[in-house]
Amino acid sequence: MKTIKIGLMGLGNIGTGTYKLLEMNRRQIESAAGAHISIDKIFEKDVEKDRGISVDPSKFTQDPDSILKDPGTDIVIELLGGIQPATDFMLEAMNNKKHVVTANKAAIAASFDKLSKCSEENGVAFRFEASTGGGIPILNAITTALQANEFHEVLGIVNGTTNYILTQMSDFGLGYEDALKSAQAKGFAEADPTADVEGSDSANKLTILMALMFGKYVKPEDIPTEGISKITKAQIEEAKASGCRIKLLASARIKDGKLEYGVEPVVLKNDHPLAGVGNEFNAIFVSGNAVGDLMFYGKGAGPLPTASAVLGDVIQIARASKTIGGE
Amino acid sequence: MKTIKIGLMGLGNIGTGTYKLLEMNRRQIESAAGAHISIDKIFEKDVEKDRGISVDPSKFTQDPDSILKDPGTDIVIELLGGIQPATDFMLEAMNNKKHVVTANKAAIAASFDKLSKCSEENGVAFRFEASTGGGIPILNAITTALQANEFHEVLGIVNGTTNYILTQMSDFGLGYEDALKSAQAKGFAEADPTADVEGSDSANKLTILMALMFGKYVKPEDIPTEGISKITKAQIEEAKASGCRIKLLASARIKDGKLEYGVEPVVLKNDHPLAGVGNEFNAIFVSGNAVGDLMFYGKGAGPLPTASAVLGDVIQIARASKTIGGE
Repeated sequence: MKTIKIGLMGLGNIGTGTYKLLEMNRRQIESAAGAHISIDKIFEKDVEKDRGISVDPSKFTQDPDSILKDPGTDIVIELLGGIQPATDFMLEAMNNKKHVVTANKAAIAASFDKLSKCSEENGVAFRFEASTGGGIPILNAITTALQANEFHEVLGIVNGTTNYILTQMSDFGLGYEDALKSAQAKGFAEADPTADVEGSDSANKLTILMALMFGKYVKPEDIPTEGISKITKAQIEEAKASGCRIKLLASARIKDGKLEYGVEPVVLKNDHPLAGVGNEFNAIFVSGNAVGDLMFYGKGAGPLPTASAVLGDVIQIARASKTIGGE
Repeated sequence: MKTIKIGLMGLGNIGTGTYKLLEMNRRQIESAAGAHISIDKIFEKDVEKDRGISVDPSKFTQDPDSILKDPGTDIVIELLGGIQPATDFMLEAMNNKKHVVTANKAAIAASFDKLSKCSEENGVAFRFEASTGGGIPILNAITTALQANEFHEVLGIVNGTTNYILTQMSDFGLGYEDALKSAQAKGFAEADPTADVEGSDSANKLTILMALMFGKYVKPEDIPTEGISKITKAQIEEAKASGCRIKLLASARIKDGKLEYGVEPVVLKNDHPLAGVGNEFNAIFVSGNAVGDLMFYGKGAGPLPTASAVLGDVIQIARASKTIGGE
């Protein structure tokens, strides 16, 4: 079997989950990939931190070029997060003929066209299943099995943090601030929760979904976006009293030949399939002109579900590529 | 662009839907495939029937070998249904180096090993997304994006006919016979509904799911199977009174290292995500050791949803194969 050499950039929550999952399911993953998978180098400053994994210290590097310019690296997995330097690293990797896998929705949404074009020009894969819906294989579905459809709508709960907060407010009568604190205590929200609660994380994911489903790149800052930070206990109670729940939805649809889109809190009847999606779960509805309505439901975040998507992408690259990995 | 030549076997409901969908979404489909798609020959006895499509009569053939032995045929789409002669036709097509796409769960379930081996030996694709869950891209998900997981459970409503009957009994108080008649009137059940109502159709799909998820081929006749024909109005009412619904579930799980499986009616609490899946819809839960629980929901039958899966498979073959279709 050939060996595929991976340079991992970032050993935070998702990076550590990816490293762990490869150890945990190595037999299954390598059998599916038809190749040995070796994480050879890890770009990460914090080498001392106890992550509950055992990493050979010689794998750590503080020099990104030792991965990006290494002719031995087949695939770069970018899990640094943030728009820069992640975007430049991904472009450099692809220009150096390396396949790229990332979970970085902010970077993809900011530069979708540039990154896609770079991957085409270099004939390398650029895969990002983990960026949208965590472990839910939604991007794979819309770019492979569902391609015989013209899509007309997508509607999704694509941010687990806000869905957890709204569920806690609705189910346990918490106010927004208390629900946010609970989310932070459980690791579902960051110390600075702005990107989640103000909706920009959902907008990033909607940019990605629209680009793949409708072939149209809309910058996230051009998506009308309203978050959940102004939602009051009273509004939640009022929705409940009329048999409804408030959910933060990212949506886009073709209407009269035009693409309409937005991110906003929406009052849904309890019998709407998205109303029952609770806590940190995500769910995405897509509608195609042949298949009709489909829904995908699962964990939208967390180290292992996200790593499932990251390594799923690695496996697809290994299977599709005849030119990487020494025999 | 190259042209991919298709031999279509069977122009019944699904065959007609496939033909229609290719006409309807040709631009989208050919752009995704990177090829022109041409249905050159159709094996079908009934050439006179009005199907609402216009087919050049010269495309019809009554001789299967004019497709199976034609060096010009790239892909055979088998939509005859039934175990034979469909299985022999698929084997002959693959032995003649043709890729095969089918929706035929009975044939796949009866000869999974033989058909898979034949495709491997001949280096051709054998794809059957449409066989399980209709338009829901469940097989694609478990064989690509989710491959970094070890699966431990699958649980599904995989037969639309029985789910329609059970929903009608529960929502409108119909008895079994009346609900069946309603299903037949709506085209959701055949004149002889045995395969659906006695559970063997669900067992066929469970055989396929288990083979792909657990790498274990269990013949459908070896799956303990109980249908819905003995379910009474009283049982439905009793379930309703205790906040439950009865659903026909196909399920398999790894327990203490052993694979357990079966098809049977199950009483589900109303808050179980599968309880809300009504009428002709299907839903499939899978659980993996990294991704956790995922659910896929959509139309499990019908000409266009099924055709979506069939042509999705054709597109994947066209994209993956460098050796078919003249430039």
